[in-house]
Amino acid sequence: MDIKQKILSHDKRAAARLISMVENKDPEGLTILKDLYSHSGNAYVIGITGPPGAGKSTLTDKLTKLLRKQGKTVAIIAVDPTSPFTGGAILGDRVRMNDLSTDKGVFIRSMGARGHLGGISEATSAAIKILDIYGVDVIFVETVGVGQSEIDIVKNCDTTLMVMVPGLGDDIQAIKAGVMEIGDVFAVNKADRDGAKRTAREIDMMLDFNKGIDWRPPVNLVVAYENQGVDVLLESIMSHRDYLMSSGKFIERRTNNAKSEIVEMIKERIERSILDNSRNEEKLDDLSQQIVERTTDPFSVVDQLFEAYKATLGE
Amino acid sequence: MDIKQKILSHDKRAAARLISMVENKDPEGLTILKDLYSHSGNAYVIGITGPPGAGKSTLTDKLTKLLRKQGKTVAIIAVDPTSPFTGGAILGDRVRMNDLSTDKGVFIRSMGARGHLGGISEATSAAIKILDIYGVDVIFVETVGVGQSEIDIVKNCDTTLMVMVPGLGDDIQAIKAGVMEIGDVFAVNKADRDGAKRTAREIDMMLDFNKGIDWRPPVNLVVAYENQGVDVLLESIMSHRDYLMSSGKFIERRTNNAKSEIVEMIKERIERSILDNSRNEEKLDDLSQQIVERTTDPFSVVDQLFEAYKATLGE
Repeated sequence: MDIKQKILSHDKRAAARLISMVENKDPEGLTILKDLYSHSGNAYVIGITGPPGAGKSTLTDKLTKLLRKQGKTVAIIAVDPTSPFTGGAILGDRVRMNDLSTDKGVFIRSMGARGHLGGISEATSAAIKILDIYGVDVIFVETVGVGQSEIDIVKNCDTTLMVMVPGLGDDIQAIKAGVMEIGDVFAVNKADRDGAKRTAREIDMMLDFNKGIDWRPPVNLVVAYENQGVDVLLESIMSHRDYLMSSGKFIERRTNNAKSEIVEMIKERIERSILDNSRNEEKLDDLSQQIVERTTDPFSVVDQLFEAYKATLGE
Repeated sequence: MDIKQKILSHDKRAAARLISMVENKDPEGLTILKDLYSHSGNAYVIGITGPPGAGKSTLTDKLTKLLRKQGKTVAIIAVDPTSPFTGGAILGDRVRMNDLSTDKGVFIRSMGARGHLGGISEATSAAIKILDIYGVDVIFVETVGVGQSEIDIVKNCDTTLMVMVPGLGDDIQAIKAGVMEIGDVFAVNKADRDGAKRTAREIDMMLDFNKGIDWRPPVNLVVAYENQGVDVLLESIMSHRDYLMSSGKFIERRTNNAKSEIVEMIKERIERSILDNSRNEEKLDDLSQQIVERTTDPFSVVDQLFEAYKATLGE
């Protein structure tokens, strides 16, 4: 059997290998993924994000166990855009070296920033497709940070779960403001700590500003470590899925996601076509030096390079 | 006096107005900035980053006060890529509605994600230039998150200060791993808390892996709120500056920063030239739908769009 057939017949190692190939921009990997693409689209993709220390890994594990009890198969992609490691070295896997790792119905993969010429967002996107083709019911995409690239990653999921935690200090206000739009479901984890209910109320109040939307994101109090409230949280996530399905928004959302994905990919393609040219590299070094010496400015340089680029492509 | 002359004669409101113009991609704003560019290059730019709740704002304020006592003028740019607000509404300014805001030698600006067609990184870069031309000795660029876009912002500074804090939980390991390369100086803030020394030791241990570099990033224990250790921290930052100056790395670094900036700008320019075309927009919608229906795949679509794009530019 070749790797395609293996993946279609649910071979875990073959799926893992294809993810690595695509991560490393192996052209064969991309061709295989392209050929298999029509087999994707069946898995439900749940993004999990929130500030560091919110307990996202533990919560993901508990949700996974619950889904396993319901007979569903699950993949977990732990994404850390700030990590130079990849392929399972850091975080996710280490923390999860427990009962989940021996469960055949669970596929775990960590992704870091190393070797992703196309950005971690593109690599994660490919990994989602591969695990979807390999065949799991639910894919969790868990991110470590709360920056723009993490948001870019989870906002391309079917449902996005935002995990908050009480007592993270002042900055939390700003985080909340920024993530309001991307959270479909909210969890306040470590709800046995002081201030949990207040945090939940604050999130709820901020949601009041989002008038005119059909779906009101629920805010759930959970204690992941103690497995408290995880079942209700999973129900909230599934309600959001039901809402998307019954309102027709599911296809709309996936179409929007596909659109932003191809825009990202074409930007990346163009970037590579600029940078892969070694003459460009030298020219860039020269121009950068002139900018620092103030004999030119970055805006004129960009105008000039853009014109040159158009001319090259037209040849 | 026109806006250019006003900025050159140190008019705060004119500088603020130009930042807003550039934020809103007003072409006139970019032309003005281009004309004034040769007056830039004198301010020393210090990036401040670290996880939410690390106390970056307080620390920035204390460093600012110390510099003011030394007779230096300071600008603070508080960047929040996840905030939909801009121009001073959220965070930074609110927290700083204290003695600093009445000091004529301090310029404070908050930047959020709204209206930055070119990305917040490009807008921040422009704001740095404008404040440099306006004329301050030191510019602090403070970010709220720890994601990739925050790292992209601060890594373009002359010196990057990484603020850590004890007891942020598991995720901190991953954050540390990712930011090791960008921190020139480290601060462990809230050092009166348990575990501060251990956090400092851990950072120090991770720095041991970075062999073969001339500059060993110092790790400083501080309690910003109590103004403890802030003077030593400022000395560490200034030592890094001295190191850059005496080793010749200063020009090298600024040249590299200029290079990554023009690459970012040209990517952005090309992106706009793809998306500003309404026929493209419709076509994209169509193709996205076909992807979701699995009658095509994103990889073939990108191939096709890239060819079409080349053809258009060649016309």
